[in-house]
Amino acid sequence: MNGAESLVQTFVNCGVEVCFSNPGTSEMHFVAALDRIDGIRPVLGLFEGVVTGAADGYGRMAGKPAATLLHLGAGLGNGFANLHNARRAATPIINVVGEHATYHRQYDAPLASDIASVARPNSVWMETPEEATEVAAAGARAYAASMSAPGGIATLILPADTAWLDADGAADPVEIAAYSEVDGATIDKVAAALKNGKKSAILLRGRTLLADGLELAGRIQAATGARVLCDTFTPRMQRGAGRVKIERIPYFAEQAVEHIAEVEQLILCGSQNPVAFFAYPGKESWLTPPDAETLVLARPEEDSLAALEALAEAVGAPAQAPEHVALAKPDLGSGTLDADGVGRAIAHFLPDGAVVSDEGATAGLFTNIYTETAAPHDHMTLTGGAIGQGLPLAAGAALACPDQKVVCFHGDGGAMYTLQALWTMAREKLDVVTVILSNRSYAILNIELMRVGAENPGPKALSMLDLHNPELNWTQLANGMGVEAVRCETAEKFNDAFKSSMSRKGPFLIEAMI
Amino acid sequence: MNGAESLVQTFVNCGVEVCFSNPGTSEMHFVAALDRIDGIRPVLGLFEGVVTGAADGYGRMAGKPAATLLHLGAGLGNGFANLHNARRAATPIINVVGEHATYHRQYDAPLASDIASVARPNSVWMETPEEATEVAAAGARAYAASMSAPGGIATLILPADTAWLDADGAADPVEIAAYSEVDGATIDKVAAALKNGKKSAILLRGRTLLADGLELAGRIQAATGARVLCDTFTPRMQRGAGRVKIERIPYFAEQAVEHIAEVEQLILCGSQNPVAFFAYPGKESWLTPPDAETLVLARPEEDSLAALEALAEAVGAPAQAPEHVALAKPDLGSGTLDADGVGRAIAHFLPDGAVVSDEGATAGLFTNIYTETAAPHDHMTLTGGAIGQGLPLAAGAALACPDQKVVCFHGDGGAMYTLQALWTMAREKLDVVTVILSNRSYAILNIELMRVGAENPGPKALSMLDLHNPELNWTQLANGMGVEAVRCETAEKFNDAFKSSMSRKGPFLIEAMI
Repeated sequence: MNGAESLVQTFVNCGVEVCFSNPGTSEMHFVAALDRIDGIRPVLGLFEGVVTGAADGYGRMAGKPAATLLHLGAGLGNGFANLHNARRAATPIINVVGEHATYHRQYDAPLASDIASVARPNSVWMETPEEATEVAAAGARAYAASMSAPGGIATLILPADTAWLDADGAADPVEIAAYSEVDGATIDKVAAALKNGKKSAILLRGRTLLADGLELAGRIQAATGARVLCDTFTPRMQRGAGRVKIERIPYFAEQAVEHIAEVEQLILCGSQNPVAFFAYPGKESWLTPPDAETLVLARPEEDSLAALEALAEAVGAPAQAPEHVALAKPDLGSGTLDADGVGRAIAHFLPDGAVVSDEGATAGLFTNIYTETAAPHDHMTLTGGAIGQGLPLAAGAALACPDQKVVCFHGDGGAMYTLQALWTMAREKLDVVTVILSNRSYAILNIELMRVGAENPGPKALSMLDLHNPELNWTQLANGMGVEAVRCETAEKFNDAFKSSMSRKGPFLIEAMI
Repeated sequence: MNGAESLVQTFVNCGVEVCFSNPGTSEMHFVAALDRIDGIRPVLGLFEGVVTGAADGYGRMAGKPAATLLHLGAGLGNGFANLHNARRAATPIINVVGEHATYHRQYDAPLASDIASVARPNSVWMETPEEATEVAAAGARAYAASMSAPGGIATLILPADTAWLDADGAADPVEIAAYSEVDGATIDKVAAALKNGKKSAILLRGRTLLADGLELAGRIQAATGARVLCDTFTPRMQRGAGRVKIERIPYFAEQAVEHIAEVEQLILCGSQNPVAFFAYPGKESWLTPPDAETLVLARPEEDSLAALEALAEAVGAPAQAPEHVALAKPDLGSGTLDADGVGRAIAHFLPDGAVVSDEGATAGLFTNIYTETAAPHDHMTLTGGAIGQGLPLAAGAALACPDQKVVCFHGDGGAMYTLQALWTMAREKLDVVTVILSNRSYAILNIELMRVGAENPGPKALSMLDLHNPELNWTQLANGMGVEAVRCETAEKFNDAFKSSMSRKGPFLIEAMI
């Protein structure tokens, strides 16, 4: 058994089932090991941003890491942006980054670069084994690091000779750092605060945004009148009919400030104080009201779910949340297609238990709102703001949840960053329906250009935000990668296309001309 | 004048003419400044790997930097791989990377990351101005750093408030570190060595690979019998009819070792000792013959061209190189199209003064050989081994050389990494003909899998190298981005398509099914 085989066997023993891959020469022994050791499904991406974004989608839905296989610093660099998003989502991922053989590194060969420098910003753990016999144990540590609360990215830099030389076999598992317990005094303090008559809001993040956590929050709200909030962008939230609805903090800083202006006590539950996505001249960066007190119920690495449960008990919350979202499907649109019509159809036809990958940006706002009362679904968003995540995220989620329909709605500008994900969807026959919201624009930047105070933009500036010249044809792009697609210019056609796509299996793309 | 305007004006004063851009909110003031200050053409790329690869192609051909405009760490990360290639090519580039406002950085907003950590591996210079009044001077230093011998990447991290706050105006230029002179003793020593009867080879890199340098090398060869070599991958070489032909060191290490086995004295001229691209079990990493002596005529930052000239003088070289490549166009292929037929047609119809972007990988080998005796042209290759450079490189070269036909031939696997470059070609009406060598495979990896000793690969391993399922349709992909395209399955059709593409203007893609 060589080093690569010992690593793959260690991953299999830990429960890793998928390896999203874009290998090169230095990773060939790892690739060969995937055949010799049973248990890991390799999934090829034709670009590393697809590989890392898919690993993020997989990890968010599976709650455990996929491995990635990347080719030296350049391959890791190509995957950087979606690893950044994954870091902000606290997604468990194990990167295996091939490196030149230990004795070859001194020669500064053409592909050599400082891999660690590219890995460090997104990694909670990073190691480079120097001997083949060290690889398996490093793999076990990587798994444990990625799964340690609240989850993160472990990067194992694998010199080629440590993969091909003889090793001893798989390593024993390493203990995972579980979520630490919130002490009773903290619970009591927050419970007391919730009863002191001040206006309170609880900001949820992490696993408290799944159904059980929301139910607890709904019960606490019923007992105390506290508002329940979530960040603008959340890794995974369960929403729709039958769930407890909470308030999403608006994207634009001035709206966010207004939205929570009345809050006198902000209670953090797996979350941090909200801040503006960008700075703007004359606008606030720190969004918590200046006179509000912040109380920490649970830090991200603490057991926020148990803390919420204890808090519900402490405030004498009712056994059930009194309010759950009632199923309310919007009427379908008609006539010329617009973003509103797209949102209506998606919310109308979304099946029970769907997984939604939302990178709709400005054009996706309607869909986001209408789906709040759609059939119950999982909702994933762009946690790190690095656009080009939605398609790979959908692919990864489909691999994690083969029995659930995955719906991706995506702005056209952002989708271009990682369009190669469509090929992986076709290759793996993933059950993903992609809706491209084609407005031929970086529409958000037209708004931001004004908001940052860049007045009277001229033609050069405006051309940097405009995708009309030439117009992208997403139907052709999808077909070129083996994905069936249809272009829709009327609401009727879109309604039909989306409806029928929900009752078939496999990848499909709808180009919504809005 | 705000900081962004002072920066743009400084760049204009330095002679920067193009800014390849993929901006976001934090770069909006720089974008607006491109309108207020005349002189810089902004060129939008729909992915940052296009932006940085185009800047590389521009810099290699123009001999001066383009600016790039990138969106925080994630945008820089997306551009990392082609910056890596540019670093290996010693291409002058100025990256402007937008960052959160100085006072906003403390809040760790979603897009915040360690930009410097991603920039450091590829940058010869990096600064982050903290005040708007410091931006212009930093810009002048960035320009000088990028142009200082032998050329490199300068990265200016620009906090948003330093762009929007008031500044003082453009900065004075900063002195560029010129190539340093090689001293007479070194020339004498190398000249003496070339006459000592041992078998010598001169390894050229950098600007000595342009026509004048090759002519000097040819004269020295005539006087001394020394062989003249270049690396497998070179940033820019002038070759074809009328030029002095030199020997390219083969890619595979064992072939390279054999190729230069007889060399007793290796003379480096702007180059470094050749090393294997990758390590392989039981094969050499260091390719210089063990008993050979290495003599340094000129280091990369020294004036290799003047050194060659002095050396020619010192060895009493004839006034002209005795041998120049004679124009020899191969016969055209016929019947089923293959890589040989593609190479024949490209070499046959290549116009005088074309610029060739070569990322043909295995399938491009024939083209590479046939074009050695084609019409004189500039030839650019994948210097850093990070695939996905060829299309952006061609786009950038076309902007630098609007009067020259640009021909890109590219393997299908690599082209998928940065296919968004086709959109920029269409938008800017760039005179680039792209030939996709479609073999539906990472063909090089099928070879490498054996060469690294990963024996008896199974179906999972082989599937990682195979692009058949589903097949890419490059005609549709090109059409989807506004580029006309044709698919060719016979040599006759390819010959016609390539011939006619040479006599029209504007972007065109030929999908060569080989």
